[in-house]
Order: sequence, then C-alpha cells, then structure tokens
Amino acid sequence: MNDSASEGAPIQRAPVYQTQRRVEFRDTDAAGIVHFSAFFPMMEAAEHEFLRSVGIPVMPHHESEERLTWPRVAASCDFHGPARFEDILQIDLHVDRIGQSSISYRFELTCEGRRIATGKITAVCCDLKAGGKLVKTNVPDDLRQRLSGPQND
Amino acid sequence: MNDSASEGAPIQRAPVYQTQRRVEFRDTDAAGIVHFSAFFPMMEAAEHEFLRSVGIPVMPHHESEERLTWPRVAASCDFHGPARFEDILQIDLHVDRIGQSSISYRFELTCEGRRIATGKITAVCCDLKAGGKLVKTNVPDDLRQRLSGPQND
Amino acid sequence: MNDSASEGAPIQRAPVYQTQRRVEFRDTDAAGIVHFSAFFPMMEAAEHEFLRSVGIPVMPHHESEERLTWPRVAASCDFHGPARFEDILQIDLHVDRIGQSSISYRFELTCEGRRIATGKITAVCCDLKAGGKLVKTNVPDDLRQRLSGPQND
Amino acid sequence: MNDSASEGAPIQRAPVYQTQRRVEFRDTDAAGIVHFSAFFPMMEAAEHEFLRSVGIPVMPHHESEERLTWPRVAASCDFHGPARFEDILQIDLHVDRIGQSSISYRFELTCEGRRIATGKITAVCCDLKAGGKLVKTNVPDDLRQRLSGPQND
Repeated sequence: MNDSASEGAPIQRAPVYQTQRRVEFRDTDAAGIVHFSAFFPMMEAAEHEFLRSVGIPVMPHHESEERLTWPRVAASCDFHGPARFEDILQIDLHVDRIGQSSISYRFELTCEGRRIATGKITAVCCDLKAGGKLVKTNVPDDLRQRLSGPQND
Repeated sequence: MNDSASEGAPIQRAPVYQTQRRVEFRDTDAAGIVHFSAFFPMMEAAEHEFLRSVGIPVMPHHESEERLTWPRVAASCDFHGPARFEDILQIDLHVDRIGQSSISYRFELTCEGRRIATGKITAVCCDLKAGGKLVKTNVPDDLRQRLSGPQND
Repeated sequence: MNDSASEGAPIQRAPVYQTQRRVEFRDTDAAGIVHFSAFFPMMEAAEHEFLRSVGIPVMPHHESEERLTWPRVAASCDFHGPARFEDILQIDLHVDRIGQSSISYRFELTCEGRRIATGKITAVCCDLKAGGKLVKTNVPDDLRQRLSGPQND
Repeated sequence: MNDSASEGAPIQRAPVYQTQRRVEFRDTDAAGIVHFSAFFPMMEAAEHEFLRSVGIPVMPHHESEERLTWPRVAASCDFHGPARFEDILQIDLHVDRIGQSSISYRFELTCEGRRIATGKITAVCCDLKAGGKLVKTNVPDDLRQRLSGPQND
C-alpha cells in the first residue's frame, strides 16, 4: 500500500510469473474452441511452474521430509473470448493474497493481446501426515516471502 | 422476493434436476482424489441432461432450424471435501437466475450426504449464425419457462 | 477349442458384459467428433463396471486385505467411424484371453448398430505390497472363473 | 530392405523429431502414476509439433485453400514403466511407414533413459470437402518428402 493507492488509484502489480502454452487438440471441443474446463489444468500447470521457479515443492515426495501440500478450496474462471487449436496463450500469474494458511492466485490468459480468460485458484497450506491425512497449517515465513514474488523485494 | 424472504427466512428451492454419477478412475489424480478440474465436465454433463429432460437442444445440429446455443461466460467451484474413485456423487442442479440473455446454474455435489462441491456455471443464450458467428440474444419465453423447472408451475 | 473350431467355423462368443454410455461434450474435439484418446477412459470404465459386476475389487482399499490390482501393459484401438456429441454408445466387453498372470479385454463400440471402435486392454495381475511396490502374480483360480463370464458355466 | 538388413543387422533409423514434455498433475491418477490414456494426447501433440516443424498444416483453417487433414484409424501403446508427476519425458517420433494414403508414426517415450512407453498412431490422408465430409486421398509427393524427415535426404 502506498499513497497513490489510498487515493483510489488502481494498483497494477506485475505478475510474479509468466509462461506460455500452445493450445493442443485435446483442449478443444466440438464448438471448435478450447473447452471451458481445459483452462483449469492450464492454470494449475502455470502455478506449479511458478512454485518450482521459487524452489517450493508442489507435492511432498515419499522420501522427502518436506510435508507441505496445497489442496484447492476454490477455483473460478471468467471467459472473455474463445481460444482455438494452436493458439499460443500467454499466462500471467498473480498472487492476489497470502492469508494465514491460504494463497489466492489469479491468472490472466491472453492470445496476441486479446483477452481470453481470467481465472482464480485458492489453495490451502496443509501438512501431509502419515496415512495421507491433511491438516491445515500456517504458511511458513520463508515460503510466504518466496510466494510474494520478486516485486516485493 | 416475497414476504417470507424479506423476513429473512431462507428460501430452500428444490433442485430442478437431480442425477448421479460414479467417479471414474480418469477423474482422479496422484493425490488419490478427484482432480478439481474434473468436477466441471461433470457439472456440464448434468446441465446437458437437464436441458434434454426439458426438451431444449444443447447444440444446434447442422440440419436443424434451431440455432440457439449456450456458451459459458463464467464457471466456479468451491471444494468442500474429497471425492474418491468409485464414489457415487449425487448432483443437484439449481437454476439460480434467468436473466434477459443468460442463465446461472448451481450444482450441489454430495456423496452419501457428505458435501463435496458447490459449482456454478453461467451461460449466455446465443444465436449461431452461418459461419459459426455467435450473437447474444434474449432467452425466448418458452425456453425461460422450461428452464425454470417444475417448481414454478 | 472344439471340433467346429478346428473346421474353421468362427467362434462367436457372447460379450461377458454390456453397457451403454452417452458421449459428453468434453469427449469431443474441434473436428466435431469424439477425440480418439477419449475412447480409452470409456473402455476402462466399462472394464471396471464389469469387475464390480463379478465382485472383483478394482483397486485395493487401504483397510482391505485384498491386495490385487491390474496395471495395464498395453492398450490399442481401431477407429471404424466417428462418434458425436450425445451419441449413445453400446460397449460390449469380451475377455479374449486369461493368461497365467494377465487378462486381455476387447471392447466393441457401436452406435445404433454402426461400428465405431474396437479396443483392447491387456492388464497384469499384481500384488500391491506395502510402500506401493507392484509384484506380478498368478491370477487366482476363483478370479479366473469370475473373469471368464457367464458363458463358461 | 537392403543387403545389410537381410544379413540381420538392425536398421537404427534416427527419429525424425524429438521433443520433451513435463508430466502435469492432471496427467496422473490415483495409482500415483500417469494414467495410461494420457499418453495418447502427448503423442498427438508431438505429432502436431512435428507437422508444424516441416510446414504441414495440422488442420485446414476456414480461410485456407489447404484442405488436407489426418484422421486417425488406429492408435496403440505398450507401457514399459510408470511415469510420475513432474517427470520430464523425452518423446522420439519415428515415421514407420508412409503408405499410398496413410502414415504410421511411432513414439518412444523415455524418462532419464528409462523406457516408459512405445506408442503408435496411424492416420489417413483425407480431403476435407465442403460440409465436413472426409474423402481419403493419396499423400501428395511434396508432403511425402517432408514427412520422411531429414534422414532421407
């Protein structure tokens, strides 16, 4: 928050991660465009790329001591315009909010500057206990910093 | 809105359509549960079953004179609890709102009474013109009535 | 093998299981037909329905003592004709062969008598050991009998 | 076939195209590995990358004069070992055979040298007529040459 924000100017924060992805044939449907459900795995893949890029494991490995994982509690998407087979989608990932034990991502998908979709995923920080039980836990401070992205340095 | 609503009593409208679906293996992911994105095609399939049940074509056929179709402008889902392989999901479809040219569905997914997910899809009524162009149009009155379901008779 | 077979008469064995499935919108692609890859989950779902129908668990549950599972080693499909959105597919499941530790299924998919696809899946009988390790094992005799279907009584 | 082949020396032809792909979470299933059906869209995406790399359109665009397309008549895959979330798969594409009006691809999938899967797709060269009708046609000579890859120069 800075002064201009308190005066009502919108804060245009830069995305913390950017990636691209070409629409594959299996992403499309008989209407000739990307099926609305296909944007969700695309957004998740971008989230996972981002996590890897800042050194946060997406899923604990069996042998690892790291036991944090991020089940989703909500996902949504607004569809602005159609994407088609072979389109190259630009995916800009924003971290909208890091709560005590949750994180909210926003994904802006465009194709050659044309707006395609705006999606959101909210995930909860969980401790994966023996036997597969998940227990909600606070986002550790070092992760919180890495999740905030470079613009908060 | 009616009097009882203004007094704060919740209106518990019955779903306009109910169906069931068994979780298939391809719906699951390496966390051992249904992947969050897999609920969207399930909700869409329930919507399409509902449309067929009230005699509304889902997609115009080439030879048909019926030219209405329903592209989605928004979809969202809150995930309350995990569903697993072979679970039988109860899907209750509600029509939350029929606007001038749009319809908003809500889907309540449960498994043996346990809440799994609440999803929403908003679709826009469009005229499919020659060449595949979509033009937003008003929901015709006869469709509006059929979409409102049996409880509004 | 019997005499008539040795004389060259084809053996027309009945399917051990039959089911139906309506093509959903997510099964289709921008060519307006079912995507070729979408037939594989359909065949697997039919296989799992069959296993349940003869009382064989598809996947061991954590708490269960039953530890057998059936990873696939091969899958194939010949595509005879297109299937489209909302088509109702008839799926006939045949057990082509039960080997010492494997089973080969064949799936004949038709739509109103028209041939759509012929698929095959070969699965291996495995013991699921603690830690997730899979060890190939012989198909137990009681399972072998149930997998052979009603025509072998 | 040439002399060295008749003497039993195996012909090790180089792949005509090579690409890599990271396993995404949606590719996995509750057994913790890539679902067997998920390899087919991966192979198709590699095929389409290859076609683009040699300047062959995958699907005719509405405005294009190019009317050739490649519906598949068969697909198969042998599964040698499991692939898991985040694995980077090496996909080597071979053109096994170009017939009068068909092409057969083979895909060798490995992960850090470990064999994962060997898949095959056979597609037929078709002319896309007005109204969506497909008519089998001969593979044009210039395409035949481009499909054969660099090793046949």
